[in-house]
Amino acid sequence: MIEGFYAVIPAGGIGSRLWPLSRADAPKFLHDLTGSGNSLLRDTWDRLEPLAGPDRISVVTGRAHRAAVEAQLPGIPDHNVFLESEPRESAAAIGLAAAILHHRDPDVIIGSFAADHMIRGTQVFQWAVQQAVQVAREGYIVTIGIPPTEPSVGFGYIKRGEELVVEGAPEAALVERFVEKPDLDTARMYVAERNYLWNAGIFIAKASVLLEEMALHQPALHAGLVELAASWDDREARGPAVDRIWPTLPKIAIDYAVAEPAAERGRLAVVPGHFDWDDVGDFASLTKLISQGRKNDLAVLGPNARVLSDAASGILVSQTSRVISLVGVRDIVVVDTPDALLVTTTEHAQRVKSVVESLKLTGRGDVL
Amino acid sequence: MIEGFYAVIPAGGIGSRLWPLSRADAPKFLHDLTGSGNSLLRDTWDRLEPLAGPDRISVVTGRAHRAAVEAQLPGIPDHNVFLESEPRESAAAIGLAAAILHHRDPDVIIGSFAADHMIRGTQVFQWAVQQAVQVAREGYIVTIGIPPTEPSVGFGYIKRGEELVVEGAPEAALVERFVEKPDLDTARMYVAERNYLWNAGIFIAKASVLLEEMALHQPALHAGLVELAASWDDREARGPAVDRIWPTLPKIAIDYAVAEPAAERGRLAVVPGHFDWDDVGDFASLTKLISQGRKNDLAVLGPNARVLSDAASGILVSQTSRVISLVGVRDIVVVDTPDALLVTTTEHAQRVKSVVESLKLTGRGDVL
Repeated sequence: MIEGFYAVIPAGGIGSRLWPLSRADAPKFLHDLTGSGNSLLRDTWDRLEPLAGPDRISVVTGRAHRAAVEAQLPGIPDHNVFLESEPRESAAAIGLAAAILHHRDPDVIIGSFAADHMIRGTQVFQWAVQQAVQVAREGYIVTIGIPPTEPSVGFGYIKRGEELVVEGAPEAALVERFVEKPDLDTARMYVAERNYLWNAGIFIAKASVLLEEMALHQPALHAGLVELAASWDDREARGPAVDRIWPTLPKIAIDYAVAEPAAERGRLAVVPGHFDWDDVGDFASLTKLISQGRKNDLAVLGPNARVLSDAASGILVSQTSRVISLVGVRDIVVVDTPDALLVTTTEHAQRVKSVVESLKLTGRGDVL
Repeated sequence: MIEGFYAVIPAGGIGSRLWPLSRADAPKFLHDLTGSGNSLLRDTWDRLEPLAGPDRISVVTGRAHRAAVEAQLPGIPDHNVFLESEPRESAAAIGLAAAILHHRDPDVIIGSFAADHMIRGTQVFQWAVQQAVQVAREGYIVTIGIPPTEPSVGFGYIKRGEELVVEGAPEAALVERFVEKPDLDTARMYVAERNYLWNAGIFIAKASVLLEEMALHQPALHAGLVELAASWDDREARGPAVDRIWPTLPKIAIDYAVAEPAAERGRLAVVPGHFDWDDVGDFASLTKLISQGRKNDLAVLGPNARVLSDAASGILVSQTSRVISLVGVRDIVVVDTPDALLVTTTEHAQRVKSVVESLKLTGRGDVL
């Protein structure tokens, strides 16, 4: 357990690129995508519990997902479930948690960890968080960056700058800058240079520091969140405050709202995380994750899958009890659900998001 | 109407290479594969009715399909439905019809037409049958061969020999020999030589001639069928005779049992059929049929299909109301049914038959 540390799990995104597995009513974080037997959300909780303790992990999620989240996390205290009345991006979600927890305890250090990422290597993860908290105590916002294992064009990168001398955090450094998803040549250069890390979207900071930076760069968002936090623990006042304030908050990702401007001011630090990490962003990444490099295999996800495959590779996700036969299809993606079927290839996995858009536009939102 | 002519439609095969569309309880001939709005069986009936009349078309089918066949062909008289107690290949099926019809009318000329082929061009079809019947009156067994439009390796070929001089049949010729499905080079040669025709499995002959040839080359089969035919129209005797004789009959295709040996004896003639013909044997051929050469299109079969496709080509068969999204898959074959799903490519369409074998062997025959 880390003294004074509070974990925050924003559980907001649906994971459109994993449609029709991920749905509005069954978002990515509720699925077992790693074959661990647990949902990604539960895996996230289990990773954080030894660090924060069961009473100091909060989840920020939509009202519609409250029951599902509580079913996944039976140990979560009521006052640690922060419900959004509608999705307003990560700066509002994490900022809300920061403001509430800061209101309850002005000295709290919070760490925000996505509900729907995959991490393997619990001890190394914990060691990275411990270092990050040490650096956060010095007043930095700290991110954990993943040393790249390949020139991925699907992730953003963090450029490591000057080393920081902090007791208990031998690997800490300043962040020189954030970079958006690069093209392949740039990504290759980043990997070769060895001072670029994948941005895993993990942020650890004193809540007060996070809020200060937010006040500087997003004053309207900050003001709204502080006002909301002040009435959050008052059962009478919370509802009206949420209804009045939440819909007015700017929709912006925490990277743009806080991390990038803080990096420019020299207040952002990074600690490397030497664990396996993936955001499981699309079916190509899910395939790689499940097949663990055995390129000629067919990865199968679904406890009741009845599969007959012949010279097939890629991924099959089965949520029905149908017999599924795949013959001579390579790098295929087949997602079989009771009301929707997707057939594509790992190469085209990114295009699934536009399928979801088209379904919305053509009045078939019933399957989203 | 052609005087003395009786049409026979053997409706026995399941069409395994069209699984999971074709099933034991929903064989290929019961499906509308051409988008005509009718089943292949009904289309076959409609083509033959002007030639034979509604009272002179018989169907040979399995007991299990009786109700479905009668639903498709409400005009068929009871005495024209010949039920097999179990499948015994085409020589037994067509031979049974020949023997029964010959027993009823020794002078009858019969023509056998598969229940599950596609033919476009009704007038040209009728003209070919009329010629064939003229040649049959001279004591030949006559087949209708299709001038090949491409070097198909999926069909057998008929080599045309010497011309025959028959009144009313200007295009008739002797058959020199039958050839099995060739390889591509041989098929190319056949097409170039212009005297090879596709074997469409159509046979027209006096029933007496067909039975004589059968007696010569398959005496056991002939004896059994003649005995069976003798008691067929006796309601008391038929059942026991079927139970006793049918299971003992040799299982053999009519091509081997009768057509090939008859060709060697110079008793087989051919008339060219200048109509579009396809046996719709697998999903590659079905795709070609439906897309009519528009190679970059996705052919869709299924009245209620809810499809969203992006850069997809091939065929989608939808028998459910699910939303189906195909993204970036070329020459794909997707067959979506309530209890089974097939994903393959037109290139591998022939392998579907082995899928069916595997399903049998692995105890998943419930979806066959």
